[in-house]
Order: sequence, then structure tokens, then C-alpha cells
Amino acid sequence: MTFSVTILGSGSAAPAANRHHTAHALNVHEQFYLIDCGEGTQERMRRYGISPMKLKAIFISHLHGDHIFGLPGILSTLNHLGRKTPLPIFGPPPIEEYLDFHHRHFTQYMGYEILCQQVNARENTLIYQNNVLEVTTLPLRHRIPSCGYLFREKTPGWNVDKQAIEKYGLSRAQIVALKRGESVRLTDGTLLESPQVTYIPYQGRSYAYCSDTLYSGKVVRLVHGVDLLYHEATFLDKDKQLAKETGHTTARQAARAALLSESHRLMIGHFSSRYKDENLFLEEACSIFPRTILAREGEMVSIP
Amino acid sequence: MTFSVTILGSGSAAPAANRHHTAHALNVHEQFYLIDCGEGTQERMRRYGISPMKLKAIFISHLHGDHIFGLPGILSTLNHLGRKTPLPIFGPPPIEEYLDFHHRHFTQYMGYEILCQQVNARENTLIYQNNVLEVTTLPLRHRIPSCGYLFREKTPGWNVDKQAIEKYGLSRAQIVALKRGESVRLTDGTLLESPQVTYIPYQGRSYAYCSDTLYSGKVVRLVHGVDLLYHEATFLDKDKQLAKETGHTTARQAARAALLSESHRLMIGHFSSRYKDENLFLEEACSIFPRTILAREGEMVSIP
Repeated sequence: MTFSVTILGSGSAAPAANRHHTAHALNVHEQFYLIDCGEGTQERMRRYGISPMKLKAIFISHLHGDHIFGLPGILSTLNHLGRKTPLPIFGPPPIEEYLDFHHRHFTQYMGYEILCQQVNARENTLIYQNNVLEVTTLPLRHRIPSCGYLFREKTPGWNVDKQAIEKYGLSRAQIVALKRGESVRLTDGTLLESPQVTYIPYQGRSYAYCSDTLYSGKVVRLVHGVDLLYHEATFLDKDKQLAKETGHTTARQAARAALLSESHRLMIGHFSSRYKDENLFLEEACSIFPRTILAREGEMVSIP
Repeated sequence: MTFSVTILGSGSAAPAANRHHTAHALNVHEQFYLIDCGEGTQERMRRYGISPMKLKAIFISHLHGDHIFGLPGILSTLNHLGRKTPLPIFGPPPIEEYLDFHHRHFTQYMGYEILCQQVNARENTLIYQNNVLEVTTLPLRHRIPSCGYLFREKTPGWNVDKQAIEKYGLSRAQIVALKRGESVRLTDGTLLESPQVTYIPYQGRSYAYCSDTLYSGKVVRLVHGVDLLYHEATFLDKDKQLAKETGHTTARQAARAALLSESHRLMIGHFSSRYKDENLFLEEACSIFPRTILAREGEMVSIP
């Protein structure tokens, strides 16, 4: 059961030679979720073998060009490819106006419906769920309404141990009862209790996406214990004043967020083009939170 | 004195593996003009060593996504790079509304002015000129208001032959007079007439850009004798019905336009992704107009 994220862009707004504008593709059980959509995202999805037709939903953090200018193109491509399935798109204002503008001017015939859901970027709210995933918003602190997203795989229900089924000759009704946590009476009269033979196949995994934002104590509390925390780190700590002025985070601050939130791993990205060597970010973050990795374009990070 | 065009994208709207959305960069005496701006144009400019800071003006043929979705990103990048020079942008409606929408939503501080000039796509009008170039619109026939552009290098004025200057000991005033086409009286009393000693250093060159469009007899007349005709050829002739329905041209029709307009060379592009082998376009066009080349991404076509 896959739970992984592929980095489609790791740069910030200013152009850089080898870093594209932000986009992440989250794979949960082979269903794909796009998080942010900088210019050229569709091309990089193609390059990394992720079909846009597999997208279940799109989550936009905020309406700065480097996070959204690839969206009109991808929506148009889906139409060309013949998508019929409605596509939910989440984002803070003015996402509705943005999608509406493009719909009015660039769509003669639209073969699928866009379900735009404008979110309140100040709240921590459950905005999306299906049988395997739930997504809540994380209020970020940036220059315009911005929100992060916490993706939680649902922990599956109890399974009954296969050997126990055989050993006790359990019927389908008995298995269902045990899965519900009930006890069942065996043919020899003994009572078999659910905890004796059931187990949880795996724990639901989680991925938090926090970009763009200042360091936020509130976010730290909301992402507590997350398996993988993606946190922007646009600047190095020597430029923390600049980070503050522009509503961004330094690598040190991102590491602090990971440490205090007791995240299992930290991935940093959204590097400013003023720094040529990404390893400076890694060194700075690792000095506080050693389980840090860099967001590298084309790389897939799995959560086992 | 350079006069060349670099192909930044040769595909049509539907996505294709190795063809990007349309954009051409015209270099006239090391001043650059961008014609159309599909998604990812700025990245390909960087790849091919064309600095967006060198752009003198942008010409948009029509507001379909595959010709304009790269524009907001490039305008934003120019701001990041610190452009101060105003940038003229030409295009048919609703270019003004498009630029205005992005300005309202994506610009907090704009360091340079965008001089949007919405053109009437039904007219053949001079819309831009400077000391070396003039640009006129070409009315195209597509599903929405669309116009092509004819770029004409200005033919420089008469020069006086250097050997003649020496031979006759011509003064500055006499040279100016001869350049104006006047005759001058030499010290020995003889009359030196302008045509005897003046010449035109080179003939102005021309490039016509026609995409997207049905075959148009009017355009054929307007581009008569052009040095390089770029004409879209989205389809092969076997799909001419489809071309007609979608407002596009076949390779055969593009070649016919080149033949009848007595163009010196033809370049075809905007190939539909349904065809994998571009050589089919070349063969079809060359059977009518042999001096045809394919628009290949990254290639620079010089007009000598």
C-alpha cells in the first residue's frame, strides 16, 4: 500500500536553473493528489511517469504564481485527454475567481466538472475524505491567505488472523463480528474474544505540507507526530530578517518545527535562488533535526 | 546584423512528449521579440540562452491556453529579475482583461510597466515600429479572434561608397546630400549624381507568423514575397475535414500558401500530437513547396 510523495518542483518564486516552481504529487494507494501547481507541473508529471488522469484532487496552498501558474494548463490538458471524472480543487481565496476566470475565457467545451472548494485559510478543518484518506487544512502565516494540508491515511479496521480462522473454523458471520470487536461462541462452547485473534494491519501514515509560511507554533501543534513534515525553508538563518519580511522560513526554523512537533522526518524545499548550494540548507537543518532530507526534483520519498 | 527566429515550442494544444506549446523568439539585431507564449516558455528561453530581460516586445496571436499560459510566469520573472523598461504586449481581445486580471491578483509591486495594446484581429495594421523593425497584423481565421504578425526589418537608407568619398574628396555635407538622393557639384565643376556613388547596404528581411488559422487567401496576399513564412500545419491533408472543423491548416494547405505568396521559405509547426512522425508533414508540404522546413524545438532559423 503505497504512501509516497514525488517532488515536481523545489524552487521558490525567482527563477533558478535546476529548480522548478513548487508542486508535489502524493500517491496514496495509487491514487494521486497534486499539491500546488507551479508553471510546467504537467510537463514534469509526464517526465516522472505520473498521469494527470490519475489525479483524485488538487490542493493549492496560496495564489502566488509560483504555486499556481501551472494549473490552467493541467486543467486544459485533462480536457484534451478526455477526463470525465469531476475534479475537486481546494485552495484559499481567490481560487474560485481564478478558476472562474479561466473557465470563462479558455473553455469552449469542458468534458469534466471542476469542483472548486474555497477553503478558509485561518482554520484547521477537515475538507476532504474518502475511504483511505482524510485531509485537513493547516493555517499558515504568509503575505496572502495561505494554507497547508495534513494528509492522513485512514488506519484500516481490525483483521482476523488467518491461522485463527482455520484453527477455529470461523464462519463469515463470526469473522465480521470479531472485526467489529465482538466476542463469538465457538462450537465447543468456549468464548473467543476479539483481541485474542484480531490485529491492525498497519497504522495510517501522514504527510504535512507547509508552504509558504513563517514559523508557526500553531502549525507545530497541529502536525504533532506526523510521519513526514514538508516545511518550506526559503532562506538560511543568516537571512532570517529577510525571511521575516517576506513571510518565509529559514532552514533552522523549519528544523525547529520538526523537532518540536516530534515529526518522524523533515523534508525542506522552496529554496531561494540566491543560494547555489542546497547542502547549506541540509547542514543547517540537520544540526537541529538530523532526520532532515532535501526536496530534490524527481525524487520520490516513501513513507514505509 | 542578425535576423533569426528560435523555436521554443512546436506542438499544438494536446500534450505531446517532445513538443511544447507554441512560442517563437525573433532576434532582430540582438533585440528580441517573443511571439506567443505557451506554458514553460521561460524555461525554454533559459535553456536556449535567450534572456527574457532582452525582450523588446511580446506579440500574442490569440488567447488559447497553448499560446498564452506561459505569459503570467514570464512577466512575474521579469519583475523578479528587476526589469525597469516598459514592455509592450500586443494581442487580440481579451488580452487586456487577461493582463489586468493577473495584475490585480498576482502583483504586489511591479517594477516595470506593461504597455498592453489590444489589436483588432480583423485588420492589417502597422502596430509597432522602431529604428530597425516594423510589425503589422495579419487577420487570421480561427475559432476566436486571432492575428498573425508580419515582421519587416527596415531597409536602411543609401550609403555613399567609401572609395568614392576618397576619390572625390567629398565633404560631410556632400555625403549627407548624396544620401538624400541629391546631386552635388564637385570642386572641378562637374555634377556628381547620387545614383553614381550610393548603394543600399542590405535589403530589409521579413518574417511572417501565421498561427492558428485556416488557409486564408487574404493572408497569402499580405505576406507576398516574405523571406520566411511560418505557417501552422496542425494536420495532414488526410484529416483536412478535422482541420476545417477546428480552424486549422493542413501541411498541404500551408505549402500552398507559401507557393502562392511566393515566400522564399516555409516553416511549418503546431503539429497535432496524433501524428508521431513529423516527417510526414515535411513530405506532404515539400511535394508542393520544396523549400519547406520543420519547426524543431531549440533550432534557430537565420534569414541571411
